[in-house]
Amino acid sequence: MKADPKGVLTGSHFMDGDHACCEGALAAGCRFVAGYPITPSTEVVERFARRAPLVEGAIFIQMEDEIASSIAIQGAVWGGKKAMTVTSGPGFSLMMEHIGLAAMVEVPCVFVDVQRGGPSTGLPTLPGQADMMQARWGSHGDYEIIAISPNSPQECFNLAVDAFNLSEQYRVPVMFMMDECVGHMMERVVIPEADKIEVTPRRYTTLPPGQYLPFKPNEDLVPDMFKAGDGYRLHVTGLTHDFRGYPAMNPDTQEELVHRLVDKIRLNAPKIWRYEEIDVKDADVVVVSYGITSRVAVEAIALARKKGIKVGMLRLIVVWPFPEQRILELAGQGKAFVVAEMNYGQIFYEVERSARGKTPVLLAGHGGGTVHNIDAVAQKIVEASQCRS
Amino acid sequence: MKADPKGVLTGSHFMDGDHACCEGALAAGCRFVAGYPITPSTEVVERFARRAPLVEGAIFIQMEDEIASSIAIQGAVWGGKKAMTVTSGPGFSLMMEHIGLAAMVEVPCVFVDVQRGGPSTGLPTLPGQADMMQARWGSHGDYEIIAISPNSPQECFNLAVDAFNLSEQYRVPVMFMMDECVGHMMERVVIPEADKIEVTPRRYTTLPPGQYLPFKPNEDLVPDMFKAGDGYRLHVTGLTHDFRGYPAMNPDTQEELVHRLVDKIRLNAPKIWRYEEIDVKDADVVVVSYGITSRVAVEAIALARKKGIKVGMLRLIVVWPFPEQRILELAGQGKAFVVAEMNYGQIFYEVERSARGKTPVLLAGHGGGTVHNIDAVAQKIVEASQCRS
Amino acid sequence: MKADPKGVLTGSHFMDGDHACCEGALAAGCRFVAGYPITPSTEVVERFARRAPLVEGAIFIQMEDEIASSIAIQGAVWGGKKAMTVTSGPGFSLMMEHIGLAAMVEVPCVFVDVQRGGPSTGLPTLPGQADMMQARWGSHGDYEIIAISPNSPQECFNLAVDAFNLSEQYRVPVMFMMDECVGHMMERVVIPEADKIEVTPRRYTTLPPGQYLPFKPNEDLVPDMFKAGDGYRLHVTGLTHDFRGYPAMNPDTQEELVHRLVDKIRLNAPKIWRYEEIDVKDADVVVVSYGITSRVAVEAIALARKKGIKVGMLRLIVVWPFPEQRILELAGQGKAFVVAEMNYGQIFYEVERSARGKTPVLLAGHGGGTVHNIDAVAQKIVEASQCRS
Amino acid sequence: MKADPKGVLTGSHFMDGDHACCEGALAAGCRFVAGYPITPSTEVVERFARRAPLVEGAIFIQMEDEIASSIAIQGAVWGGKKAMTVTSGPGFSLMMEHIGLAAMVEVPCVFVDVQRGGPSTGLPTLPGQADMMQARWGSHGDYEIIAISPNSPQECFNLAVDAFNLSEQYRVPVMFMMDECVGHMMERVVIPEADKIEVTPRRYTTLPPGQYLPFKPNEDLVPDMFKAGDGYRLHVTGLTHDFRGYPAMNPDTQEELVHRLVDKIRLNAPKIWRYEEIDVKDADVVVVSYGITSRVAVEAIALARKKGIKVGMLRLIVVWPFPEQRILELAGQGKAFVVAEMNYGQIFYEVERSARGKTPVLLAGHGGGTVHNIDAVAQKIVEASQCRS
Repeated sequence: MKADPKGVLTGSHFMDGDHACCEGALAAGCRFVAGYPITPSTEVVERFARRAPLVEGAIFIQMEDEIASSIAIQGAVWGGKKAMTVTSGPGFSLMMEHIGLAAMVEVPCVFVDVQRGGPSTGLPTLPGQADMMQARWGSHGDYEIIAISPNSPQECFNLAVDAFNLSEQYRVPVMFMMDECVGHMMERVVIPEADKIEVTPRRYTTLPPGQYLPFKPNEDLVPDMFKAGDGYRLHVTGLTHDFRGYPAMNPDTQEELVHRLVDKIRLNAPKIWRYEEIDVKDADVVVVSYGITSRVAVEAIALARKKGIKVGMLRLIVVWPFPEQRILELAGQGKAFVVAEMNYGQIFYEVERSARGKTPVLLAGHGGGTVHNIDAVAQKIVEASQCRS
Repeated sequence: MKADPKGVLTGSHFMDGDHACCEGALAAGCRFVAGYPITPSTEVVERFARRAPLVEGAIFIQMEDEIASSIAIQGAVWGGKKAMTVTSGPGFSLMMEHIGLAAMVEVPCVFVDVQRGGPSTGLPTLPGQADMMQARWGSHGDYEIIAISPNSPQECFNLAVDAFNLSEQYRVPVMFMMDECVGHMMERVVIPEADKIEVTPRRYTTLPPGQYLPFKPNEDLVPDMFKAGDGYRLHVTGLTHDFRGYPAMNPDTQEELVHRLVDKIRLNAPKIWRYEEIDVKDADVVVVSYGITSRVAVEAIALARKKGIKVGMLRLIVVWPFPEQRILELAGQGKAFVVAEMNYGQIFYEVERSARGKTPVLLAGHGGGTVHNIDAVAQKIVEASQCRS
Repeated sequence: MKADPKGVLTGSHFMDGDHACCEGALAAGCRFVAGYPITPSTEVVERFARRAPLVEGAIFIQMEDEIASSIAIQGAVWGGKKAMTVTSGPGFSLMMEHIGLAAMVEVPCVFVDVQRGGPSTGLPTLPGQADMMQARWGSHGDYEIIAISPNSPQECFNLAVDAFNLSEQYRVPVMFMMDECVGHMMERVVIPEADKIEVTPRRYTTLPPGQYLPFKPNEDLVPDMFKAGDGYRLHVTGLTHDFRGYPAMNPDTQEELVHRLVDKIRLNAPKIWRYEEIDVKDADVVVVSYGITSRVAVEAIALARKKGIKVGMLRLIVVWPFPEQRILELAGQGKAFVVAEMNYGQIFYEVERSARGKTPVLLAGHGGGTVHNIDAVAQKIVEASQCRS
Repeated sequence: MKADPKGVLTGSHFMDGDHACCEGALAAGCRFVAGYPITPSTEVVERFARRAPLVEGAIFIQMEDEIASSIAIQGAVWGGKKAMTVTSGPGFSLMMEHIGLAAMVEVPCVFVDVQRGGPSTGLPTLPGQADMMQARWGSHGDYEIIAISPNSPQECFNLAVDAFNLSEQYRVPVMFMMDECVGHMMERVVIPEADKIEVTPRRYTTLPPGQYLPFKPNEDLVPDMFKAGDGYRLHVTGLTHDFRGYPAMNPDTQEELVHRLVDKIRLNAPKIWRYEEIDVKDADVVVVSYGITSRVAVEAIALARKKGIKVGMLRLIVVWPFPEQRILELAGQGKAFVVAEMNYGQIFYEVERSARGKTPVLLAGHGGGTVHNIDAVAQKIVEASQCRS
């Protein structure tokens, strides 16, 4: 399906990542945003608040807090809207219970987290990348989500569209993991014409009321939804529920439901994985990175190459589900890894796990507050090239 | 230091794990509990509410929700109390922001999570073990905590004392990760005399006001505290702060503070690790387990041994920090692993990572709602013994 | 019915009015108190919190705010308890919605307001008597309540018992209008033996389920209640409801219900009125007063009598419903009035209205923060005696 | 000062009273509305939410509840806006604490209460007039406000302008007491050109910082304000405060401040009173009424006149301060009163008080849910004419 032109600001713009993210959401068909302002994510909702009156059917509501925001969007989705909420670290922590609910009742929606330095209040105006594991594991119980990390304002636009599309495709909350640098950096953002933007429609059932079971999955493990007002009845509960949506609190239904919720993403992972590889083929060392750090890594790679080291990059675009298979392949080819990220080890652990001890995995990490020092990353590349041999 | 006899219910009791956890807290010197009732953890606070009027200085307060509970205890700690809060999955998710705060400002306190089936509301009255990764990664930003998992009412008592002790030793929030089975199972619990119970006192500074810096670490990376009312001044903020506790929002202070917060646990990990090994020495397969599942695993191991398989067990008592070094040693000795846990893979990933591809790691997981089927675990042991060869 | 000895602290005590109020509540059978601390009322709940563990079935809960407190007690009443909440001005304002609910669904319960200087935060530690009209008119819509004003610690005990008794008799919320002086003043309080204290039991229906209609009034306009757990079904709603308790939103049911709610108090008023008269018979001037001011007025009256003025006092004990008939009788006998109260005119207006222009009505008012100046009241008495002639 | 044309929708419209009230607010310069939707007032804020993006500087915010709404507007006023909140009975009860604050710190602002049947949830969609005494007495402590009651959509526009003007003139919260009928009735509303609408500007001080005292009154008892950002410092507290705005918690400051707050309205009352008289001069009976009931009363009067009774009407436009002097004059001329209002006696008591027993005062009251029966009012007029003679 093509994008609705009403939400598409076609043209060439100079804007920051927060604003571009908002435009991506609008282009993807997002028509409901609930949020509570928090630096450095506020510009996303500020822009949506201003744009909403100009886009038919678009609503912005500032809620009293992040708990309210993260549930308001789910109500909007059941009412037929595409919806997102937007926050940063401390607010993201407050949303954890409702992210689990969204996963449990399979609400397609997008959570934007513009990462700043943490933990706690930390560094409100400075960058971080240390909410990556939280995005995957922050709510209680087993579930799976999708997480995406853009590294430029243009990607904030493009991938916001993809975030909504994946969310609809798999009926799963998608975490849009920006960082303060990408959010506040201004660059050229080209927004194509509406008929050049592919938008995934909601998966509406074709079954009539009576035959339709709201939580009975299709072959791809995803159940269909329905249009509110079309005469279907729905019972939505965070309790373990059967195909009808009614509570059925026993181990069998738990297995049937929760196992499917994790398999829905795990078994479809090869279709969801997305990464960019640069000069990987001939590389002895592969730098794994994402978000703003991937742009610093490019400089460090250039520096290391000047020193004669064969180094390439694997940039994660979809971070969760994690492309463990590709890491294993590269490890099998003897490539050492440097994981460059703005934390003291998060995705690093996933690379280490996926490499299965076949090659060294080094961390080029720091606590945030600024981007990496290029020399420090280059130095890790040198180290990796040495411990490999 | 020995336990204060006023909180110690010396004797041999028949009680469930929830009640035993409460008695352990009292024995450890816990004198402030704030909580909001949630199945299957409610009996912990119910008992504390009844016991509090009988123990001098003990206070229980039912707060309006889990957010309030998780901050009330931190106020109590600054006021000089040992404190804990108690919850289950959905409430635990609501506490995530304040767990990060406790880590950031180094408040010694205990969070009890009696795990039930999740995600979301899930199975309120039935067991789960799927909050294990959340315990480690649930709040935004980088930090480290300690997590402990008891597998009997007696351990609920013993390890609750240890939880408070470790919390004081490292000024870190400790997650006490029970499960519904351990919480509601009744067994004999022997509570020793007070002078047989070792209690770690708060690390009070010996420096006078003026010389004392509240966030300047000792050699073990842990700073000292002071007694409220003794004339010290304190500024506590979740913002990145310097030794004085004042906000200093720049990358250098971030590195100094947050790197220390993670190293405080990582570098001291060998002193914190705690696990039980059974028949590991001659084993070809090692079952890694914890909590109630470790007791089912023992049965499965017996079954497998009858079939002639050499299988032992490594039971995690302290789960976080994770004993990766021990796993690596065992993997190096060629032992295959079966990770038995009540989820679809959490600690499994840590074992897989730590084994570095040296031996197979299999998951015996299920979604909760009941304990494992013994045959299913035994079957995994058989599989592991086969894929090893 | 006689008081339950378990709640009765028989003996001669030296205590302040706040503590005496708490003992009166306990003697009356109050077994549930919910509150949020606020000066100068906090001592009432502090005492109840300490006394509750010693009185079987007694529960104190500190709620997160006054809104929660004022609804928690109503839940307790439906569950079979006698209950009260305790507050001061700002908290009383927050309770207004729930006072209307209590009136609408006829919940017997007691609201204690220890008045301080207002409006707004005003004078937290100093006395006032300016919530008297709010007690009567503070919630939206038409309703009637009973309000009582004690003028000594002994009366805080005695009238607290009466407050509960009237509340049960008429199924109406009773406002217990203390003031900071009476609340914090210490005097001898004699608590009789339990079998000397008359306690009004809850009016339980004798009809079986099926025949019983929870909002069908008896001849005295008051419907009967039932014991929770005895098999009756109840629907309680603040919406206009019929005898069954079901919403019936039309003018006829509104008339049937709301007219009865006001008539329940207005028509029974002669049985509820309660005042003390001193030297009124031969008086030319009658001082109308209540609470702490009545004790200052006694001094002023003595002073005026020394000057040869024939002056008496009518002290309001039950303030609402207002004894307009008695005021009219006295006015008919040509007696002038001085209304002494710690505000700029509240009960004054009721006296003025009730006197029907037959005699002068003067206000001896001030804004609170301290008790009246005796001379100022005496001077008003002189004035009144002059304008009368 | 003339109205800012940007907010004035000049022209002849067909709209209901809720919408007209919104337009009146905009014409008066209101540029900030905070509210929480509640029937039958929701249309006021719905319209403001739609109109705000079209009027420069206008902001609407939906708050999480009425407590938040009633304080948000006060923040906006201190920031330089004219502001109002909008609600109905239950929400009005929740605003009581903040109405007292507004009175205490002299915030010019408007509270719209579109009255429905009460008490409690009552009759959400049907009319009532039983919040009239609450408007005057609903918050704790002594204070005075202004209350206005429109009886048509046109008046909803006109008097909303006046409400803002009076609010600015006297720095006092103004209660705009509509009812469901007036709010939902559609009629022609003529909005004049902006230069025909008189708007009272905020009373800004002409004194420089340093000389200016924010709570020192002018001769008319009203202090001046200042423009935020112009370099003045302000301490605003609900505590009893001195001319500087600092807490001064003693009886003298209480007298100085609170006595002025009530006198500010009482002594200026003759300038504020506003009522409409019809055929009063030759009348034996005067019907006192307001809001929608005044329009029913006109029919009843016509009916009674046909029966030969000389009857006129006094319609209250400003209800508080109450025009007691005018009632006394009319009573002195021997005119009997019928008070027609949609409650069981509220303004009736004020008329009774003001008439000083000189003539009979009858109540034509009912509990709401529909307008009065014309015959019933006419019958009361007949009664009044008889008991007069």
